[in-house]
Amino acid sequence: MASAPDFSLSCPIPIQNYPQVLLAHGGGGKLMHQLIEQMFLPVFGRPDVSHDASVFAVKGDRLAFTTDSYVVNPLIFPGGDIGSMAVYGTVNDLAMAGARPLYLSAGFILEEGLSMETLWQVVRSMQAAAQQAEVEIITGDTKVVDRGKGDGMFINTSGIGVIESKSEISPHQVRSGDAILINGDLGRHGIAIMAVREGLDFETTIESDSAPVAAPVLRLLEAGVNIHCLRDLTRGGLASTLNEIALSSGLNLHIDESLIPVREDVRGACEILGFDPLYVANEGRFVAFIPQSDVALALSVLRETSEADIGASVIGQVGKQATSEFSGQVSLTSQIGASRILDWLSGEQLPRIC
Amino acid sequence: MASAPDFSLSCPIPIQNYPQVLLAHGGGGKLMHQLIEQMFLPVFGRPDVSHDASVFAVKGDRLAFTTDSYVVNPLIFPGGDIGSMAVYGTVNDLAMAGARPLYLSAGFILEEGLSMETLWQVVRSMQAAAQQAEVEIITGDTKVVDRGKGDGMFINTSGIGVIESKSEISPHQVRSGDAILINGDLGRHGIAIMAVREGLDFETTIESDSAPVAAPVLRLLEAGVNIHCLRDLTRGGLASTLNEIALSSGLNLHIDESLIPVREDVRGACEILGFDPLYVANEGRFVAFIPQSDVALALSVLRETSEADIGASVIGQVGKQATSEFSGQVSLTSQIGASRILDWLSGEQLPRIC
Repeated sequence: MASAPDFSLSCPIPIQNYPQVLLAHGGGGKLMHQLIEQMFLPVFGRPDVSHDASVFAVKGDRLAFTTDSYVVNPLIFPGGDIGSMAVYGTVNDLAMAGARPLYLSAGFILEEGLSMETLWQVVRSMQAAAQQAEVEIITGDTKVVDRGKGDGMFINTSGIGVIESKSEISPHQVRSGDAILINGDLGRHGIAIMAVREGLDFETTIESDSAPVAAPVLRLLEAGVNIHCLRDLTRGGLASTLNEIALSSGLNLHIDESLIPVREDVRGACEILGFDPLYVANEGRFVAFIPQSDVALALSVLRETSEADIGASVIGQVGKQATSEFSGQVSLTSQIGASRILDWLSGEQLPRIC
Repeated sequence: MASAPDFSLSCPIPIQNYPQVLLAHGGGGKLMHQLIEQMFLPVFGRPDVSHDASVFAVKGDRLAFTTDSYVVNPLIFPGGDIGSMAVYGTVNDLAMAGARPLYLSAGFILEEGLSMETLWQVVRSMQAAAQQAEVEIITGDTKVVDRGKGDGMFINTSGIGVIESKSEISPHQVRSGDAILINGDLGRHGIAIMAVREGLDFETTIESDSAPVAAPVLRLLEAGVNIHCLRDLTRGGLASTLNEIALSSGLNLHIDESLIPVREDVRGACEILGFDPLYVANEGRFVAFIPQSDVALALSVLRETSEADIGASVIGQVGKQATSEFSGQVSLTSQIGASRILDWLSGEQLPRIC
């Protein structure tokens, strides 16, 4: 049906600046934030996204629903592969909503010519990961695209979880004075992948520490820790996540670089590769905002739950309401005591890391 | 951890025959069936898949969960686009389980360089399709892959629906003597896409009739039609779907070619393109197995619900239990009265049609 052009239907992303999709539109930084805020949310109509999973109720049960596509390159890397990531990543998005993960879907987009053995290895890895994370993969789909129109394999997993806790976990619950915790050291996952991709050989191989975190989160809730906000540190790393929360909450956040655990080998690899570990993607690391009174309990719970969580640390605290001039900024006190603004990732630091 | 090779872990697809993934592994025919049956189901462990959606219960509510990735080429075609398909296809998989579709996720895999205007057009189309199908898109994800590693855009949608009816809809419910109905004419969707792809110009453009079918299915259930089995006629078309049901139910099926509605222009295009309309993919067409006593009611309900459903027709009936020699076959009486076996699609007839 021919109809007059409707101005309200014009593309909300300025076409003169961005006529085409850039890698950075998927990178977890400013451009991706803009695409989601300006194009997807107004159209799909749930403007209040407090975490990656969306919460809905069916006859009184609160359920969480989330989706993620995995396009990591290479498909198999030290410490993991696209299959285990596809399970952990979606499980972790559910956990960040305080949900107990129950069911996953698995949608495969295979490129013609993919080795059948590779597919089998990835499928087995998904099975093992699902067992570890205590979820069932209950529905699936397989598409094959012509050679040269894909990249081996992409996997989408969507997940459903049930929210048993009464806590409201959201950036809007963050309060001035809250402690900012992370559950372990940063950067191993992203650097493990980048090292393979760049063909770098370190003295010892840095392995991805990607892992499911539903169990520690549920244990924090069961122990009575009053979690105000949770977010996993994937694309864009700690820096981007904190900026998102500062923006949503309208509060300034302060962190202290000397309190942030980064392994020496990861720090060294970051220097060689030219990355800042605060922007490197993780899978299995999260930031939690909790009242100071619950810090000791939270740390003891986290340090009990898994080897990876031994590095659980308080890295800073929530400051005052942002002034009208700046809406929620993140400031960092560096190792040498200087203070600076920790900005959004601009551009694409690490493409196809998840 | 190094461990001895475990024979039980070897790839269940014979590597000597299929060392690599072929287009046909995603085509809806024999090879895809084999991949799903031999690799995915044993590993992911829900061997009894009676439809594309999986059913689970949360505190007594029966919910359906499904996923599909859409890789249709071209992205925009007469009568539809990848966005509307991604909504209708997943809504329809929920409907085939007898579920009322409630919520969808949307996972985008964009290729660097995709036109921002095209993305916007597809997103708007998803919005309109979701409104039409009465579902909400409540969670999403965006990934961008490097130029040459994708094909413009792939979309995964996963869906959640609630099953309000007490009916058990499954191939195991199919009974000898059941009528086999379809809800309209076949082939328009697949041919619309193939015509564009092959650069064919017909006198009048054949448009895709892709549409959501949750409303007519729910109305059949509300009217008290005792639906034994439902399946939508997507990849592999009517022929593949009937073969799957014959296999699962162990019953022979008989259909009559002269009763199957195919528009003249579609039949003509099929001849030019060398396709059999019984194998062409549809989106918005389903087959229903119901007792003969409910046929008049079902047809009147379907013919009331939508213009597309005017062509709702009985096309055959369920025969006897298959003998041990042949497990559930589909036979077709042709226009000229000859009878033949209607086999599975072997190889890839129509790649990337959904």
